[in-house]
Amino acid sequence: MEIVKNKAMEVAMKVKKLGQDDPRRIIHSIKVGVALTLVSLFYYWRPLYDGFGASGIWAVITVVVIFEFTVGATLSKGFNRGLGTLLAGGLGVGVDYLANLSGQKGEPFVLGVFVFLIATSATFSRFFPGIKARYDYGVLIFILTFSMVSVSAYRFDEFLTMAYQRLSTIVAGGAICIIICIVVCPVWAGETLHNLVTSNLDKLGDYLEGFGGEYFYCCDDEEQVTSIEKDKSFLQGYKAVLNSKSMEDSMANFARWEPKHGNFSFRHPWKHYLKIGSYARQCAYHIQALNTHLNFQPPNPSQFRTIIQLPCNTLSSQSGKALKALATAMKTMSDPSPTSQVHLNAAKSAINDLKNCLKSATTQTPDEPSNLLAIIPDATVASILIEMVKSVEDLCEAVSELSVKAHFKRVEGSVAVEKPQLLHRGAIKPFVEAEGEDENGHHVVITVREIENEDSPQKKGSSDTNGFVNKK
Amino acid sequence: MEIVKNKAMEVAMKVKKLGQDDPRRIIHSIKVGVALTLVSLFYYWRPLYDGFGASGIWAVITVVVIFEFTVGATLSKGFNRGLGTLLAGGLGVGVDYLANLSGQKGEPFVLGVFVFLIATSATFSRFFPGIKARYDYGVLIFILTFSMVSVSAYRFDEFLTMAYQRLSTIVAGGAICIIICIVVCPVWAGETLHNLVTSNLDKLGDYLEGFGGEYFYCCDDEEQVTSIEKDKSFLQGYKAVLNSKSMEDSMANFARWEPKHGNFSFRHPWKHYLKIGSYARQCAYHIQALNTHLNFQPPNPSQFRTIIQLPCNTLSSQSGKALKALATAMKTMSDPSPTSQVHLNAAKSAINDLKNCLKSATTQTPDEPSNLLAIIPDATVASILIEMVKSVEDLCEAVSELSVKAHFKRVEGSVAVEKPQLLHRGAIKPFVEAEGEDENGHHVVITVREIENEDSPQKKGSSDTNGFVNKK
Repeated sequence: MEIVKNKAMEVAMKVKKLGQDDPRRIIHSIKVGVALTLVSLFYYWRPLYDGFGASGIWAVITVVVIFEFTVGATLSKGFNRGLGTLLAGGLGVGVDYLANLSGQKGEPFVLGVFVFLIATSATFSRFFPGIKARYDYGVLIFILTFSMVSVSAYRFDEFLTMAYQRLSTIVAGGAICIIICIVVCPVWAGETLHNLVTSNLDKLGDYLEGFGGEYFYCCDDEEQVTSIEKDKSFLQGYKAVLNSKSMEDSMANFARWEPKHGNFSFRHPWKHYLKIGSYARQCAYHIQALNTHLNFQPPNPSQFRTIIQLPCNTLSSQSGKALKALATAMKTMSDPSPTSQVHLNAAKSAINDLKNCLKSATTQTPDEPSNLLAIIPDATVASILIEMVKSVEDLCEAVSELSVKAHFKRVEGSVAVEKPQLLHRGAIKPFVEAEGEDENGHHVVITVREIENEDSPQKKGSSDTNGFVNKK
Repeated sequence: MEIVKNKAMEVAMKVKKLGQDDPRRIIHSIKVGVALTLVSLFYYWRPLYDGFGASGIWAVITVVVIFEFTVGATLSKGFNRGLGTLLAGGLGVGVDYLANLSGQKGEPFVLGVFVFLIATSATFSRFFPGIKARYDYGVLIFILTFSMVSVSAYRFDEFLTMAYQRLSTIVAGGAICIIICIVVCPVWAGETLHNLVTSNLDKLGDYLEGFGGEYFYCCDDEEQVTSIEKDKSFLQGYKAVLNSKSMEDSMANFARWEPKHGNFSFRHPWKHYLKIGSYARQCAYHIQALNTHLNFQPPNPSQFRTIIQLPCNTLSSQSGKALKALATAMKTMSDPSPTSQVHLNAAKSAINDLKNCLKSATTQTPDEPSNLLAIIPDATVASILIEMVKSVEDLCEAVSELSVKAHFKRVEGSVAVEKPQLLHRGAIKPFVEAEGEDENGHHVVITVREIENEDSPQKKGSSDTNGFVNKK
């Protein structure tokens, strides 16, 4: 008895947690219940029953099968069901007419051949990636309806009446479904995708903002240590980004079906979110590489670490701030460039500082422990952080493109450019400064973009053996 | 006309390619066609029709809906459909009995309330991750059948006859489906999962084997360059591993349903493949980090690069060979330890060589360009390769565990140990050698495992500021 009680408590706790995590789940369940109860009226209410007969059952089936969590998925399934039913119905009637021509004996044979051919080819079509992504359910319904129509037609004379009744109940069931789905607390796939991508950027930003403090913490004061130990969940958030692809793909597929809602128009560039998502995963892969270094803390930091600490900290936190600026811009649907560019450029100038530190490192401290081995972990972290800036820059560009395509509101005074020219926005100070100094030949400007480019100048020019492109 | 012809050609080419990529697709399509044609017999053949009546249509529906590509998916859907139908049917009859008690007026009301309550709670249960993964379709069918039974019962007196007819046609349709699916060229989800994981290990191995030659190629002879430029597809293969999670998850879910097939028993440890898959992704993330460094080639390599080239090359290719040995062992379902351990230990001893090189690097060449900046990219590659060995070791352990759990054939003489003690298999030379030298205090042994461990000795002991744990 005690066991049953505990088990029941456990289930109740799980239900409560599921509901609290996303209250839309409870609302969705109630919506399905209401829709099903409504279509049951087709049976309970005599006038309706007299009109539709036993076909009312198809309204029930339609509701159960097409009512999905998001509006886009419901519309997509409804459209697929409608189109599949109509096409297959038409084809079925045609095939039945042909079969009739072949006489009493030949009819089942002709019908059988057609069922086989059409079922086989339709099933094969489901392997096409384009059809699989969008019309998989429609093809299933097509096969189902075609088989049903062609075999039913063989037995029933009142075939057309039945087809009419069935189709009208399906339409009625579908309509009830779609109306309830859209009118009562709708869950939009598009909005879900937008929020998912936004929160992923936020999570990456959180990690990068906190990484410096976490990695170099032994060198910081006590207060900071305790405050960090309070909540380390920000170190785990990025992991959700690593495997976000399938969720993003399906949401983007459903979002295409949705009418205008909130700030999203019918032709909102949903596909572009997949591009942002892919760059976000690139960034998460870098963070994954950083994360393996996080748990290594030497008891007394090397001089090398002390030297790179400041620029690395800046680099990481400014990259994080840039990502969080992008997330905020997406949340408010405003132009991301002004704020994110400031942080991106600060991160870029931190790269310069870091490189200068590295250059002077051996010069300043020839008495540092005589092996490179000691500094490699720290150097790797620095190198990954530098790579990270490229991903952050890609993300800045992608979100900027989105803001143009989706007509995010511009901050007054800024001009909507088709392709944001990141390097030449005169207004931002840090990077221009770096470029100015570059002309004097003192500083090293890193065009991180070109590292991955096969035709980068370092292949042709006479640059030195540095890991990065140096302008001279 | 020309356009139509071209379009038709294009579609024909696509169909051909889809079929060639995986001929099982064509066979599957034909199987579905055959199954559907067979169930049509329920209609065409008079004795069967007289027995089953219009309910024969349920056989058609069942075949279309549960016939999936893999045996596991078909069995899972069939089981779900059967269980959902039976439970909902029983519950529906019970509820109908209760509703009858409340008189003519009250009946629709009571039925409506039950439909609402049960549809709502069953819909909510689909949000439980465990139910969603395995019984999602069953719950859908449960809701569908319950609604249909409870509303049908309201109108039909010959309810039980109908239920019997419907159930028997569903069973017949399901049986035809499952028999054709299993008997004619079956596609096993388990085998697919096994091959997927195996080929992922192969792809990772290919990359690592080739990486050294690719990264250091400017220093190699001409012949090698041309041979490498011939086929660089091995550099892309790992990307498929990055997003393999959803495919692996669903295949593992389906595989649980499958009976013994080939070398796989009913209780084959399918869940363990998910563990291997997750380690493989870890490895792929490291490769992703390596890959960003691949396109950077200085015109004249630094002295530092020349120094680390040999150990890095060995490290990478031995890691790759270890992974390919794992893949081969999985293909042949034999004990992976003997060969993979040799390569893993060779990789580990290459780490030692690399570390010695690094240690001596500054000592030997004080006249190397006076900044650390120049060597950072190469140092990062070295560091990632060292990290990689940990992933490879995890993979070796995981595959070894699998080989024990799944009773892979042992190579004669080797003992099946519950937990393979990787570091103490006395027979393998390279690593033992390293350990032997370690006792003399000359060499550095890296216990890579402990880098990520919070309680690793470097936190407590008096080790120096190296990035790795040094035994002294």
